[in-house]
Amino acid sequence: MSVLFTNVTALTMDAAQPVLKDACVAVEGTKIASVGTERPAGEFDRVIDCTGKVMLPGFVNAHTHVPMTLMRGYGGGCDLQHWLHDYIFPAEAKLDERCVAAGAALGLAEMIASGTTCIADMYMKTETIARTVLEAGISANLSCGGVYFGEPADFSPETCGDCRNQTALTEEWHGAGDGQIRVDASIHAEYTSTAPLWQWMADYAQKHGLRMHVHVSETRSEHEKCLEKYGQTPAQILDQYGVWQNGGIAAHCVYLSGGDAQLLAQRGVTAVHNPVSNLKLMSGVSPLFFLRECGMNIALGTDGVASNNSHNLFEEMKVAALVQNYSFGEDHGQLSAADILAMATANGARALGRDAGVIATGKIADLILVDFTGENLFPCHDIAENLVYSAAPSNVVMNMARGKIIYENGQFLTLDLERIRAEVEHYALPHIFGGT
Amino acid sequence: MSVLFTNVTALTMDAAQPVLKDACVAVEGTKIASVGTERPAGEFDRVIDCTGKVMLPGFVNAHTHVPMTLMRGYGGGCDLQHWLHDYIFPAEAKLDERCVAAGAALGLAEMIASGTTCIADMYMKTETIARTVLEAGISANLSCGGVYFGEPADFSPETCGDCRNQTALTEEWHGAGDGQIRVDASIHAEYTSTAPLWQWMADYAQKHGLRMHVHVSETRSEHEKCLEKYGQTPAQILDQYGVWQNGGIAAHCVYLSGGDAQLLAQRGVTAVHNPVSNLKLMSGVSPLFFLRECGMNIALGTDGVASNNSHNLFEEMKVAALVQNYSFGEDHGQLSAADILAMATANGARALGRDAGVIATGKIADLILVDFTGENLFPCHDIAENLVYSAAPSNVVMNMARGKIIYENGQFLTLDLERIRAEVEHYALPHIFGGT
Repeated sequence: MSVLFTNVTALTMDAAQPVLKDACVAVEGTKIASVGTERPAGEFDRVIDCTGKVMLPGFVNAHTHVPMTLMRGYGGGCDLQHWLHDYIFPAEAKLDERCVAAGAALGLAEMIASGTTCIADMYMKTETIARTVLEAGISANLSCGGVYFGEPADFSPETCGDCRNQTALTEEWHGAGDGQIRVDASIHAEYTSTAPLWQWMADYAQKHGLRMHVHVSETRSEHEKCLEKYGQTPAQILDQYGVWQNGGIAAHCVYLSGGDAQLLAQRGVTAVHNPVSNLKLMSGVSPLFFLRECGMNIALGTDGVASNNSHNLFEEMKVAALVQNYSFGEDHGQLSAADILAMATANGARALGRDAGVIATGKIADLILVDFTGENLFPCHDIAENLVYSAAPSNVVMNMARGKIIYENGQFLTLDLERIRAEVEHYALPHIFGGT
Repeated sequence: MSVLFTNVTALTMDAAQPVLKDACVAVEGTKIASVGTERPAGEFDRVIDCTGKVMLPGFVNAHTHVPMTLMRGYGGGCDLQHWLHDYIFPAEAKLDERCVAAGAALGLAEMIASGTTCIADMYMKTETIARTVLEAGISANLSCGGVYFGEPADFSPETCGDCRNQTALTEEWHGAGDGQIRVDASIHAEYTSTAPLWQWMADYAQKHGLRMHVHVSETRSEHEKCLEKYGQTPAQILDQYGVWQNGGIAAHCVYLSGGDAQLLAQRGVTAVHNPVSNLKLMSGVSPLFFLRECGMNIALGTDGVASNNSHNLFEEMKVAALVQNYSFGEDHGQLSAADILAMATANGARALGRDAGVIATGKIADLILVDFTGENLFPCHDIAENLVYSAAPSNVVMNMARGKIIYENGQFLTLDLERIRAEVEHYALPHIFGGT
C-alpha cells in the first residue's frame, strides 16, 4: 500500500525541518518514503489532500493499562487505598481472558480515535492484549508488570508466575507483526516485589535484549518507605540489581531525587509523566523541568482509564502544560507548546525504542491528521499552541499506524466498535460486576 | 414550539429528584412544562427519544470575554504582563464593531457546540455582543467591565466612557429577547478604576436593580497592592461603596481572605472559578473548599479563550476537580463529581439570577443531551463521574436554549458557521493582525 499526502502542513518533531508547509509526504509499506516540497514521481494507491488539516506524528501513550478501560469511573472519589482495595483489586480478580480482550479493544478504540499510534502497556493476561493490539494495528511495547509477594528465600523462576508469564510472552510475541509488538521486561514496582525478582528480571532483560518498564516513585509514601526499608530510593535499589541496564521506562517519577534523575538519565531511562492520574489519585506533580535539567527524556502517558478517566493525549498535554507551568514556570521557565508536543510524540517513541515519532524519510509511518477547520481550532495564530491548548480527539480525522490507515472520519477500519461494545456490555461487565 | 423528550435519563440538579430514569420531559415555549415518568397528554411538535443519551441542564459559563476568541493562542507562552502589554492590549486597540461581532459569533458557536446555554460576559462594544447573542439564542448577562484611569477629582459620569456605555447598554438591552439578555452593572477590577466609578456604578446598580460583575483578587499582586494602597482587600474596599448590594459575580477569587469570602457570601455574591485560565496565566488555584465553607456559591467559567484556549466546560470541570482535589482534597475532602456538575449548571444559573440550571417543571428549558454511546463514555459505572472525567464537547448531540433547539448532531441551527469563519478570516484577522 502506498499513500501520498499532498498540501501537507505538519509539525515534524524533526530538528532539521520542524515545520512543513505545502509539502508532500509519501508512504510506502510501513515507512515514510519521502518528505519534500516536490510531488514525488510514481503512482500511489491513494492520494490524500491535507488542505485545512495539520499532520503530526501519531501520539505515543508511554504508560497505560489498557484493559482497565472496563473500570472507567469505577470507585471514583475514593482515596488511593480505598479505591484499590475496595474497587480495583476485587474487580481485577474476576478478569478472565475474554474480559481482558474486550477491555483492551475498547481502550484501543478510544486511543486510536484520539490519535494514538503506539503504546507502552503493562497488565496481566498480556498475550491476550497482544492479540488485540495485532488486530487493532497500532504498535505496542507490552509488559506483564511482574510482582513477587513471597519470601525472598522461596523465590524460584520456575514457580514465580510472572517469571513464567515474562518468558512465555517474550518467546511468543517479541517482534511479532514485523516489530509491531515488542516485549519489555517489567517489574510492577519496588514495593510489590523483592530482590530475587529484580535480579531475575534484570538478567532476563540482558539476555534477551529487552527494555524495562517499572512504576517508580509515584507516591511520597512509596518513595519514603523504600528509603526506610533499604536506605536507598526505588530507582537506586533497582539499579543495584542491574534493572536499568537496557534503558526503558520509569513511570510517574513524581518523587525522584536529583541522584535518581541523574542515574536514570545515564541509564537511558525515560520518565513517563502521567499528570491526570497523578492529580486524580492525589499523588503529586512530577517536576519535569528538574528531570529535564538532569538529562532525562520525558514522555507522556494516560495511566489506566480507571484513574484518569480517558485515553486522551490532547488532554494529557494540556494538563501537563498547565500544571507544570503554574507549579514551576515562574522559577524555572515554562515548557513551550513545542516541548509538550515532543513529549507526546518523538520522546515517547524514543522511550519505547521505536524508529517513529518523527515525520522524516525512513521513519515508521505513524501519522495523524488533525482538522483545523472546527470552531474550537479557529483562528490559528500558532499551530503548536492550538494543538496543546485547544485541540480535542474529535479533531482527529485520520490515524495511520505503520503505514496503514486504521481510522478515518469517525470510522474504525480495523476494529468493530459495535462488536466490542456488545462484548463489554453482555460479557465483561456482567462477569466482573455482576450486572450491567 | 413544544417538544417531548422520552426515555430520559437525566441528572437534574434538583434536590427533590436528582436523577431521572425512563422519564418524560416536556417543553412548551421557553419553559419546562412537566417532568415525570408518565407520558404527558397532548400533542407535541416534536418527540425526541433520548435512549443512549444523558440529559443535563445546559452549562452556564459564568465568566468569559467571548470576542477574545479571535486571539486564541495569541502570545501563548508569555507571562501575564508581557502577554497583556505586547499582545492582547495592542490587538484589542484595533477591534471594531465588526471584529467584535465576528469574534463573539465564533466563540458562541464553540460554546453552543460544547453544551453551554447561558453566559456572563464582560467586554467592550457590548451592544454588538448583545445583537450576536440574540441571534445565537442562548441567554446572556452582559457587562462592559467599567474602567476609569483618570484622576478621581476629574470623574464625571457624563464624560466617563464606561458610565455612558453602561447607561446605553442598560437602556437598550436589559431584558431584551423576553429576558434572554440581562445587563449587569460592572467594574472591570479594583486596580483599573477608582472610588468615583465604584460609587457611581453601585448607585446605578441599585437604581436599576442590576447585579454586579467584577474581577476580584485574581492574582496575588493585585490583592496585595490593594491592601497596601487602601488597607483593605478588593472585596472589602468595593463593599465600602455598596458595589455588592445586589449580589452578582466575583470572578477568579484566587486570593480571597476569610473575611472577604464571608462578606461576599452575605452579599449573595458568587465566586466564579476559572481554573484553566488561572493555571495558564500562573495566577494560582482558588481554594473552593474554603469559599464553600464560608458560604459562597461557586460557579465555573472559561475566562477568555486567549488565556484558556477553549470554551469547553467539560474540560473546566475536569481541571477544576483534578486540581482542587490534588491541592486540598487530603485535608478538606474531595469535591464530588456531583458538586462539580452543580457548579457548571445550577450554581451558575443562580449566579446570574436565572431561573434555569435545573431540570424541573417551570424552569427555563436550557437542556443538553450527551450521547453516552461513544467509545470515550463507555462503560458507565457512574453518570456524574463520566460527565466530569470522561466527556467531551463532541459527545453533545443537542443544545436547547430557552426551549429552542439551537444545535443538533453537529449542525448549528441559529448561527451560520461558514459565514462566521469567512468574516473572521477575511475581515477580523487582517483588520487586527494585518494578515491571516
